[in-house]
This record gives sequence, structure tokens and C-alpha cells, in this order.
Amino acid sequence: MTPDEGVRRARLAAVRRAIEIVREESPEVIGVGTGSTTALFIEEAHRAGVLRGKTLVPSSIDTMLRLAGLGYAVADPGSVEYVDVYVDSADLVDKSGTVIVKGGGGALTTEKIVMSSSRKAIIVVDHRKVIDEVGAGVAVPVDVLPKALRFVLRRLRELGFDASPRQAERKKGPVVSDVGGVLVDAVIGEGMTPEEAAYAISSVPGVIEHGLFIRMADTVLVSRADGSVTELPGMRVCSGRH
Amino acid sequence: MTPDEGVRRARLAAVRRAIEIVREESPEVIGVGTGSTTALFIEEAHRAGVLRGKTLVPSSIDTMLRLAGLGYAVADPGSVEYVDVYVDSADLVDKSGTVIVKGGGGALTTEKIVMSSSRKAIIVVDHRKVIDEVGAGVAVPVDVLPKALRFVLRRLRELGFDASPRQAERKKGPVVSDVGGVLVDAVIGEGMTPEEAAYAISSVPGVIEHGLFIRMADTVLVSRADGSVTELPGMRVCSGRH
Repeated sequence: MTPDEGVRRARLAAVRRAIEIVREESPEVIGVGTGSTTALFIEEAHRAGVLRGKTLVPSSIDTMLRLAGLGYAVADPGSVEYVDVYVDSADLVDKSGTVIVKGGGGALTTEKIVMSSSRKAIIVVDHRKVIDEVGAGVAVPVDVLPKALRFVLRRLRELGFDASPRQAERKKGPVVSDVGGVLVDAVIGEGMTPEEAAYAISSVPGVIEHGLFIRMADTVLVSRADGSVTELPGMRVCSGRH
Repeated sequence: MTPDEGVRRARLAAVRRAIEIVREESPEVIGVGTGSTTALFIEEAHRAGVLRGKTLVPSSIDTMLRLAGLGYAVADPGSVEYVDVYVDSADLVDKSGTVIVKGGGGALTTEKIVMSSSRKAIIVVDHRKVIDEVGAGVAVPVDVLPKALRFVLRRLRELGFDASPRQAERKKGPVVSDVGGVLVDAVIGEGMTPEEAAYAISSVPGVIEHGLFIRMADTVLVSRADGSVTELPGMRVCSGRH
């Protein structure tokens, strides 16, 4: 078994555990994240019949197209008040499972909307995404209104972030997000907690949303290289439950 | 003199005081708010030659067109790091001058961006806009991502606001803001301070920005019916100064 095969198998094990949890919830409305691990979830859940007859709420254009390509009618996130269960991946998770960084794929804003509207949120990652803590040196993706771009960059720098627009490939200039923002990567400076970083970024007018998801998951499923899956409690407080 | 003439004269006196302050600042970059009082400021400042040779940063499409109509080349707010001085009006101001409600004209998001990037921010209102306190029953305009609309409405209601999309005229459905959001009016519920209301609204994913401007003005100029102008200190803390 090559290392890549090991990773793939472990991911598959974690995705299957996520599907089990989804089944246990008997959801009517399923929120679907974005990225390669989520794509694996979609494939497997589709094969297992878990998505059939459900209202599916995508967190990105990519996921909308992926679901539509499998024949599903996809709900507009703006039409939904609640999602019963949300499944997504992450770019980084701290070892406690409480601090998650998302947005490498640029879909962080809709991901946060759909995730925070969920009754249960499951994050699936492989162990290479788990780090000791989210702090100095970690890049937080930030979705920024174009009308605020230079001002936000200046403010983020003043607040201690090394902030720059993410350069696009296959288009000139910065990456534009699915909601029409400019994607900025803001590297956390020395001595800032994730909570401080989140609060600081949120306080800047013109920031649409950022990629720090703190205490927003119910469960973080981590696949290990040996094919085992461990569960971290996400310590969710921002539940969206009523 | 009819009451309307009295109001107009008083407004004019306040606008002229704003122009004096702008002159004292010798600004290179002037941020320009939105609304009928701001329109009067533009007219008077244009006539007085105060805008000539300056970089003008508009807070809305309306103001951009108004300035362009007078022959000015208008800066894109996204291209600006700092505004030397910002002049705008407001829908409501509390009697201390620290809590301002904006967004009746729907331009609150860009107004907040440009105002918070300013070194000095001046708000001009007539005395009918001044109320004892901003609390229960006051409608706060909120700019919401369309992809989050029903979720945000639900969350705002859970948080104690009476929230509904602002119905448009001359188009079907809700008003869409200059930045592409849906405008929601969120009436503050009983027992909430303005700070609590601002924090609660900001915490909802999918909210782009809201119309509570707290401690963001340097000076609030209030025109009285007798033609006098009083100045309230805005108690600015969110200065954007460096």
C-alpha cells in the first residue's frame, strides 16, 4: 500500500463514519460543504442512497454543480432557515477540535452560513490537517467587499496580520469568491489567540466573512494513516439550534 | 418663514459649518456620504470650491452619480486606504451623539467602510433626527447576502429583532443594496442596548454590515429650528487613524 493509498483509505473510512452519523440524524435537509473530501462524501453518500429525496443545500458553486451533475435538484441556501445536518472538510483543525480554519477553496462565506444554520455539523479531515494550535503563521482566508479592498488590507496589517489578496490563476488579479468578494489571505501575527484574531477580522467594515470557525462543529472526524478514525468534540456553542 | 424654510435654513447652516471643518482639515481625500443633507453639502461645497482638486470617495452609486454630474472624477472606494475627512448625514442620532443609525437610503455598508477609513468623520443632521436613546422599536437596516436571507431573518428573530426584508418600489421583491445585498430592517426588541444589538447582528453569518454606527463620528452637527447649530462629540473610538 503506497502512502497515497493509505490516505485515501483513511479518508474513505472517515467519510463513511460521517455517512453513518448523517443516517442516524434522519435528516430532511442536508448541507454539503466544499472540497475534495466533501466530493468523496458526495460520491459515497450518493452510492449509499443517503442523498435521495433530501433537500440538498450546497455551500459553493462547485458543490452545486457536483450535486446537479449527479441528478439532484439543489436548494438555494438563501431559501433555507435550517439545515438538519452539515458535512464539510477543513484546511486546518487544532488538536482540541474547537478551532477550524476553512477557505482554501474560497467558499468560506457560504460554508459558514450553511454550517451555522445546521442542527448538527460534522467536519471530516485527515490527520495531516490537525495542528497543535491555530496561531502565528496560520493564514486565515477573508472574503472582502471589492469596494473596501485597500482599506481592509491596511486595517488588517495595522491589526497585526500579514494580509494580501490571493492571486488567481486562469484570470488576472485576485481570486473572486462565489459571493463576489475578493479573497484575502491574512496570516496571523505573533501573540494572538484564534478568538482575538476572529474578533479583530470581524471588526473591520468591508469584511464579508472569514475562515476562522470557532466552536462551530459538533464532531470533527479525523482519519489516521492506519485507517482508523478518531472523533474530536467540536465544543459547539454557536449552534443554530432553536 | 414656513416650517420647511426654517428646516432648510437650519440645514444649510449646519452644512456650512461642516464645510468650515472640512476646510480646516485641508484634506486631500474627502469621503462623501449619501442622502438629501449630503446632497446639500455637495452643492454648497461645490459652489464654495472645496471639492476642487480633491480625491472624492463616494459612499453610494447615488453620490457617485451626483459628483460625476458636477464634473468630478470619482475615486473607487476600493482603491483608497485613507480618507482625510468624511461628511455624511444620519437617520437617527442619540442625544449623546455616540449612537448613530444609518441606512434608510440603503448605502450603509459603503458608508461604514468609507467613514471608518476616515481620519475625521462629521455627521450633519437636523434636530428632528435626535432621539433620547436608540433602543426598542428602532429599525436598524441590515445588508444581507442573498444566499443567507431566510437564515439571517430567522436568526435575527431568535435574537429578539422584528426583522423583515425592505420591500422595493419600482422593482418586485426586496430592495437590493449597492453592494448586492438584500436590505432587511431589524427592529430592536425590548431590553437591548445599542451595543448589544450591534454585536448580536454582527454575529450572524451572512450579514454584510448593519446600520448601527457606534462611536464612529468625531463630530455630530445638529441644526436647530431657530437656525443655530450645536455640536455633539461623537466619542469616536473606532478611528481608522494610524
